[in-house]
Amino acid sequence: MRTSEQYQQGLKKKRRNVYIGGDLVDRDDERMMGSVRILSKTFDLAGQAEHQDLLTAISHLSGVRINRFCHVHQSKEDLHKKQDMTRFYCQVVGGCTQRCMGVDATNAISVASYEADQKYGTEYHKRFLKWLDRFQKEDLVGCCAQTDVKGDRSKRPHEQVDPDLYLHFVEKRSDGIIVRGAKAHNSEAAQADEILVVPTRALTKEEGDWAVSFAIPADWENVHLIVRPASPRPRKHLQAPGAEQGMTDSLTVFDNTFIPWERVFLCGEHDIGGRLALLFALFHRHSYTGCKPAMNDLLLGQVALAAEYNGIGNAHHVRDKLADIIMVIELAYAAGFTASEKARRHPSGTYIPDVVFCNVGRCIAGEKVYHELATLADIAGGLPATLPFEEDFYNEKTGPFLEKYIMRNPKISAENQHRLFRMISDTLTSSFGGAMAVGSVHGGGSPIMEKIAITTQYDVEARKKMVKTLAGIKDEEDRGAKEKTEK
Amino acid sequence: MRTSEQYQQGLKKKRRNVYIGGDLVDRDDERMMGSVRILSKTFDLAGQAEHQDLLTAISHLSGVRINRFCHVHQSKEDLHKKQDMTRFYCQVVGGCTQRCMGVDATNAISVASYEADQKYGTEYHKRFLKWLDRFQKEDLVGCCAQTDVKGDRSKRPHEQVDPDLYLHFVEKRSDGIIVRGAKAHNSEAAQADEILVVPTRALTKEEGDWAVSFAIPADWENVHLIVRPASPRPRKHLQAPGAEQGMTDSLTVFDNTFIPWERVFLCGEHDIGGRLALLFALFHRHSYTGCKPAMNDLLLGQVALAAEYNGIGNAHHVRDKLADIIMVIELAYAAGFTASEKARRHPSGTYIPDVVFCNVGRCIAGEKVYHELATLADIAGGLPATLPFEEDFYNEKTGPFLEKYIMRNPKISAENQHRLFRMISDTLTSSFGGAMAVGSVHGGGSPIMEKIAITTQYDVEARKKMVKTLAGIKDEEDRGAKEKTEK
Amino acid sequence: MRTSEQYQQGLKKKRRNVYIGGDLVDRDDERMMGSVRILSKTFDLAGQAEHQDLLTAISHLSGVRINRFCHVHQSKEDLHKKQDMTRFYCQVVGGCTQRCMGVDATNAISVASYEADQKYGTEYHKRFLKWLDRFQKEDLVGCCAQTDVKGDRSKRPHEQVDPDLYLHFVEKRSDGIIVRGAKAHNSEAAQADEILVVPTRALTKEEGDWAVSFAIPADWENVHLIVRPASPRPRKHLQAPGAEQGMTDSLTVFDNTFIPWERVFLCGEHDIGGRLALLFALFHRHSYTGCKPAMNDLLLGQVALAAEYNGIGNAHHVRDKLADIIMVIELAYAAGFTASEKARRHPSGTYIPDVVFCNVGRCIAGEKVYHELATLADIAGGLPATLPFEEDFYNEKTGPFLEKYIMRNPKISAENQHRLFRMISDTLTSSFGGAMAVGSVHGGGSPIMEKIAITTQYDVEARKKMVKTLAGIKDEEDRGAKEKTEK
Amino acid sequence: MRTSEQYQQGLKKKRRNVYIGGDLVDRDDERMMGSVRILSKTFDLAGQAEHQDLLTAISHLSGVRINRFCHVHQSKEDLHKKQDMTRFYCQVVGGCTQRCMGVDATNAISVASYEADQKYGTEYHKRFLKWLDRFQKEDLVGCCAQTDVKGDRSKRPHEQVDPDLYLHFVEKRSDGIIVRGAKAHNSEAAQADEILVVPTRALTKEEGDWAVSFAIPADWENVHLIVRPASPRPRKHLQAPGAEQGMTDSLTVFDNTFIPWERVFLCGEHDIGGRLALLFALFHRHSYTGCKPAMNDLLLGQVALAAEYNGIGNAHHVRDKLADIIMVIELAYAAGFTASEKARRHPSGTYIPDVVFCNVGRCIAGEKVYHELATLADIAGGLPATLPFEEDFYNEKTGPFLEKYIMRNPKISAENQHRLFRMISDTLTSSFGGAMAVGSVHGGGSPIMEKIAITTQYDVEARKKMVKTLAGIKDEEDRGAKEKTEK
Repeated sequence: MRTSEQYQQGLKKKRRNVYIGGDLVDRDDERMMGSVRILSKTFDLAGQAEHQDLLTAISHLSGVRINRFCHVHQSKEDLHKKQDMTRFYCQVVGGCTQRCMGVDATNAISVASYEADQKYGTEYHKRFLKWLDRFQKEDLVGCCAQTDVKGDRSKRPHEQVDPDLYLHFVEKRSDGIIVRGAKAHNSEAAQADEILVVPTRALTKEEGDWAVSFAIPADWENVHLIVRPASPRPRKHLQAPGAEQGMTDSLTVFDNTFIPWERVFLCGEHDIGGRLALLFALFHRHSYTGCKPAMNDLLLGQVALAAEYNGIGNAHHVRDKLADIIMVIELAYAAGFTASEKARRHPSGTYIPDVVFCNVGRCIAGEKVYHELATLADIAGGLPATLPFEEDFYNEKTGPFLEKYIMRNPKISAENQHRLFRMISDTLTSSFGGAMAVGSVHGGGSPIMEKIAITTQYDVEARKKMVKTLAGIKDEEDRGAKEKTEK
Repeated sequence: MRTSEQYQQGLKKKRRNVYIGGDLVDRDDERMMGSVRILSKTFDLAGQAEHQDLLTAISHLSGVRINRFCHVHQSKEDLHKKQDMTRFYCQVVGGCTQRCMGVDATNAISVASYEADQKYGTEYHKRFLKWLDRFQKEDLVGCCAQTDVKGDRSKRPHEQVDPDLYLHFVEKRSDGIIVRGAKAHNSEAAQADEILVVPTRALTKEEGDWAVSFAIPADWENVHLIVRPASPRPRKHLQAPGAEQGMTDSLTVFDNTFIPWERVFLCGEHDIGGRLALLFALFHRHSYTGCKPAMNDLLLGQVALAAEYNGIGNAHHVRDKLADIIMVIELAYAAGFTASEKARRHPSGTYIPDVVFCNVGRCIAGEKVYHELATLADIAGGLPATLPFEEDFYNEKTGPFLEKYIMRNPKISAENQHRLFRMISDTLTSSFGGAMAVGSVHGGGSPIMEKIAITTQYDVEARKKMVKTLAGIKDEEDRGAKEKTEK
Repeated sequence: MRTSEQYQQGLKKKRRNVYIGGDLVDRDDERMMGSVRILSKTFDLAGQAEHQDLLTAISHLSGVRINRFCHVHQSKEDLHKKQDMTRFYCQVVGGCTQRCMGVDATNAISVASYEADQKYGTEYHKRFLKWLDRFQKEDLVGCCAQTDVKGDRSKRPHEQVDPDLYLHFVEKRSDGIIVRGAKAHNSEAAQADEILVVPTRALTKEEGDWAVSFAIPADWENVHLIVRPASPRPRKHLQAPGAEQGMTDSLTVFDNTFIPWERVFLCGEHDIGGRLALLFALFHRHSYTGCKPAMNDLLLGQVALAAEYNGIGNAHHVRDKLADIIMVIELAYAAGFTASEKARRHPSGTYIPDVVFCNVGRCIAGEKVYHELATLADIAGGLPATLPFEEDFYNEKTGPFLEKYIMRNPKISAENQHRLFRMISDTLTSSFGGAMAVGSVHGGGSPIMEKIAITTQYDVEARKKMVKTLAGIKDEEDRGAKEKTEK
Repeated sequence: MRTSEQYQQGLKKKRRNVYIGGDLVDRDDERMMGSVRILSKTFDLAGQAEHQDLLTAISHLSGVRINRFCHVHQSKEDLHKKQDMTRFYCQVVGGCTQRCMGVDATNAISVASYEADQKYGTEYHKRFLKWLDRFQKEDLVGCCAQTDVKGDRSKRPHEQVDPDLYLHFVEKRSDGIIVRGAKAHNSEAAQADEILVVPTRALTKEEGDWAVSFAIPADWENVHLIVRPASPRPRKHLQAPGAEQGMTDSLTVFDNTFIPWERVFLCGEHDIGGRLALLFALFHRHSYTGCKPAMNDLLLGQVALAAEYNGIGNAHHVRDKLADIIMVIELAYAAGFTASEKARRHPSGTYIPDVVFCNVGRCIAGEKVYHELATLADIAGGLPATLPFEEDFYNEKTGPFLEKYIMRNPKISAENQHRLFRMISDTLTSSFGGAMAVGSVHGGGSPIMEKIAITTQYDVEARKKMVKTLAGIKDEEDRGAKEKTEK
């Protein structure tokens, strides 16, 4: 396994294909370093003996110890640990751990490529395993490019005025394929070693060209990353670990990009394309049952401290609001936990968590994001929005005034009051905080997508049957029963 | 194990101490037969080979096969099965299974009596095991009398103008104790063989007299059951299993009642009294993670069928509402499942489910009760409230009109339309439906009680610590950190 | 104006055409007397000098003083008074005042018949005014039959397998028309003197036969009322005005019913049919801004008293919940008030309240019905569901126990505790309470109907225009702007 | 009345007492120009003939035409126009109009100073009228410094460890008073001509020193403004009016500041101090019934356009969400409208809007702020969070890619797609958007403050009385009735 220094050295060697704000930039551009620092933690902590059990695994391919983010889950225990690892990292870095997309895409492809081979006699899975072996041994950072830009939402891929609005292959050659299109919301592409590409949705027979999956280095030729980085406001005086994070999202453009066959894991099998889209969503929603509880752990901490610092820590309505947040935390966690425990072994050997539990867990967390920000705003009061800039606290004229007047609970020092409310100000009133909120709603699939998944997968018919029995409704008299409402 | 006939014969032999509507009545009074029919199912189904694994267990005392409702959980698996058994029965009977209070109280006493003996050198646990052995072998139905009438809610037990407003012992004798007080909401007391009594709340040092637990036959001398039964409207023509259920609640009066020592499991140890109150609540909330999902399974079925019968089964807003109900079902279930899986073995041998998971699961189910009724009312429309009485459908003048005009989805027969909406009418606009709703909110502890349990038990400090680390707040500068907000 | 005795005498003289529970019954059947008692109040109180200004009006036709329920609004002040009258009556009777359907239908027909005459040269309005003059002078009780049984909700009237699933005329004759169909949820038809019939929805060109409106006496030939009455549980000892109310709903069957032309107000003009449906809904939703605040006034009172009697009247969470109910009360009231103040005079002379304000007011009240019941259940606790029957309080053995153990706030007598919780038990756990809840959601149009009305009527385009201006979006470049989203 | 040029010239002449980010800055610092631009609109538009009726008034003091923001309301019509003016300005500038604090504080002081004079024989009102005459004639911009920094929220002003945590007077002299303290969240102080100071809360007898009100020029000696400005991200290419706005908040420090008597409107009358605090809150909440509907008009427009641009403008769930926003808009508006129409003339001549209606209107708007942001995030999707920076759209390599891949609804040009989502990105993921959200919750009083106002002012006793009558509860038997729950 690599060290964070090795990871960062690797980044520096990459070809320049990252654009920010109109400029072609290096991968150590300061605006992206928050994200680099978070990813570095996934090397530093995994290297520590005390965290070995949680943060690393033994590869089922090579038998060597690898970073758990490179692992394909071989047991329920692996799924439990992936959930707990995700929660742990997010608590430590103060936000998104940023390496989950790789592990989730890897697991999804491990299943879909196997199924394609079984059904179509292809060799995707063999190629994938070869790619995976290197991915594990070199301890690479993977990201996942899934969401197509999608054009007109009321039209299917093949109905768009421009076929490129969903990424597709435009040519098959003996040595590989040519693909064109763009993937939006491609988080951490500029900090990744490998970009894993999977389809974004279910596909019809006419849409085989859009059923394409592959993995390429992030600085591959004819791949352009147009990146929007986000970070909390930089600090000049009040250094704080939580303020040193960051994240990036890329619009990743594939401009007639050549992909050699050994890196292609799906190409033309429309049914497996849709299956792969759902599998990535499923594994990723399982990850959210780790990260969303962590994000809410931190929100809970901010609310509880704001109440304590404001002197209302024991107020009834504060307790009630804390309970509401805890409920969302632990219900989402329990859903993910149950999904792991009820996971099933796929013939490929990969363990797949339960669909319904993953989705209900992700969905409740996503639905409550803004509600919880409202709670923080409620308990913290107006100060996060009007807190003077950091430098005013260090100006000799205004500093003493600010220290005097920020005092609340007299047991808390002015600096600590300042520290807490500056953090809350980042959460509520920074572009970073805003982007995190939107990401928490939509990342891994918006609540509406999870609800579709839930109603599609759930056995509503069984419940209708129970009710018919209790009501004395006999099916033979009732032709309607044969038709499904879920369709 | 007994048959339902034996159970019902047993009821008939009991002393008359049940009052309904001003009359002293027999235990087979028609108004209570709905409840008897439900409890009978717990004998009938447990006796069937196909359900043996789920509905029965091997006693750890005697080694014989017993009804699972008489079992003290000896493993995580036992807890899983108790949850699943509860859900199964409720789906079958169409509502509350009514025998869970006995198993939950039994498990709670198994722990508390052990702890009392360890701490105070008493012999409660030994007595309890002897009682339990008979309870299991005779396959008795237990109920739990917990909720005191409580008088002025802003006052503690010993501060009430009348000390009897919480049940307490008024005399200790060589052969037993004398108790006085009344327990409210004592479900199924009139259908039970044994009433298990436990305290209702945490107690202070001055309140040892209120720390009392015991079990007595339901027709014991100086015990009076003032019962309110509830059932769906009786059917004359449209027989339906769901309409044959019922439940009863008793105000159970202990009027200077003598309890022999062999039936006393706690008497004066105030700290264990509070512990026992919480333990029963905990085991019972775990049961709710089985029954509430079942109740919602049935609600989901009613909503889905109402939509199908109204011809809007595929409408987007219907699917969205189904998803909301499914989320509550499976989040509550997952919380209970996780609570079982994370259960811990108590030194007494009893497995105790996790507190936080039990409480978040019960809480979300309770909080959503009326919201889900609103969904059913929304999708079903006004008909449940204005559906003519059953007899009008069989009157020769009006019957044909009603058959003609109830038609909706033409694939569904008039009778089935009628059957479904009559069931929904029972759910939404009968006294039974109303009582079920109130019971679903408050049974096992109101949402507010669970929120108190959640915030009391949750490690909020750990989350504050995470935030402090991220904000750069050092504890040594911060005297406030030493005081707990949870207090 | 009549006295309530005269009204009741009138009822007794009517032809028997009312069915309840399979029997043809008299109009003074005890099961319907609750409703009769409420309607009697609208005579008694209107006759009292102190209420003259609010409860009566001067007819614009005859210049004589009439009951305001017979009045066609001639000013904004009339609309204000109609709202306030409705609220006042509902507060006094403890529920639905039951005479509003007549005034709302009358006002709707006054507008639609005028428009039909203007557009089609018909004589509906002249006939209507003649009918109205008698309706006012004889001080009749009107009800409104609007909601068709509707069959398959996914089909239009003319697409149903049975055309009678929406009421239509089947023959035009020189002396009148023959109509067939049935109207559901026809509240108080059995207590009314006149049934006013209006269409239920917008109609297409093919649906002229369904565009029919008329008024007939409630005991008219070939009209059958299949009635479901509902009342709180009858009291034997604890007489209470709130327990003496009741309501009835009728499935009103028109079985080839002859309507003479002088009673026909619309017959075949499909566009005016849809207009009339919306107009009745509009006037009726305006009435709901009077009655729903009153219903919530009473719910607020029950919650506040339950808190006081339980000894938690000053608790923070109680105050918070009271505020939530008050908000719904006064927002709904303010919406209705603003709708009156922004009303416009129609060429017929009738004042029509503002559409958007009526709908937002009705909608918020309807959406919160079950939430408010949840609040009452929350604060009242489990007692409403398990309160022993009234007679047990008067049995010599159990009465003293119940008096002893119902004690809560020691300042409140046992009887008053009993009285309050019995009333709350009626609200939460009686068929009457359940039916009221469903009716409060759906009466006058379900929330979903109001939302359709809101988005259809609201000037969303104006808001899009504001945003375009702020965003610098120029319409000439943007062809999409010409298409409406509302369509 | 002044022109915006004259207003801006006036700002430039002011003494430098504004700090931003550690620097003492000029009042035309670029970071504050967004706010200046908005305030300038209140001069430009008021000067246009077409807006004269809405935006100006005739002074009751001088009889000359003045800006309505300087007016003391003399009629219900004035209150209606103030509400409508506020909504109009906010729609035009795309956010907070920023001059309302002045008019609201002015009106509050007009009442409180009069009452003080009546009760204590002081001369505050006479002084105030003299100040007002100049304020109106010189067309000054007023702001209001109300919210004290408040220290420990669980303690009263006189219990704080530092008495300055609430602003108070520390010395009375023959020529004036000396005050010390700081006011937080003092919006637009750096762009105002006059700062009006009012107390923040109800005060006890011991707290006369904190009952102080006055008005001083914003650059007064010993007044320091520590300012946090906020603006949408500045645009380089895509100029847009909505992106040119801004707002500022000041921590305004009064460092032993001398206030001459002619500028003092209250000094020591503790009861009037509390009254004044509530009066400002009341007038300001009335303003919110104008600005919040406008903010939501703009949010509605953004949601509707995002849906249209995404091609889902007619989807059912979109319509439903639009209806929810419209309901909040028009309920809040109706509440303010009703509050104006039910306003009462105070003996001072000022019209005071109804308390309950103002509060319910403000409260519902504040409670829904984050819910509406969630709706915008939901419908807009992830793009607002990941939209590449503006310059990338103009870089020759990346520009064409971005234009190609941002396409959605093909009827909308790429630039317009870009313009819309950039604006939404400002709303959801900029520090300005975050600060606006927090301000929308807390400005004018947090929802919890309004709920306290609502329950304190509402006649809950009347509702309890109604319920007692219906339940047959007689007060003479019930001592509890004499005690108020509101206390």
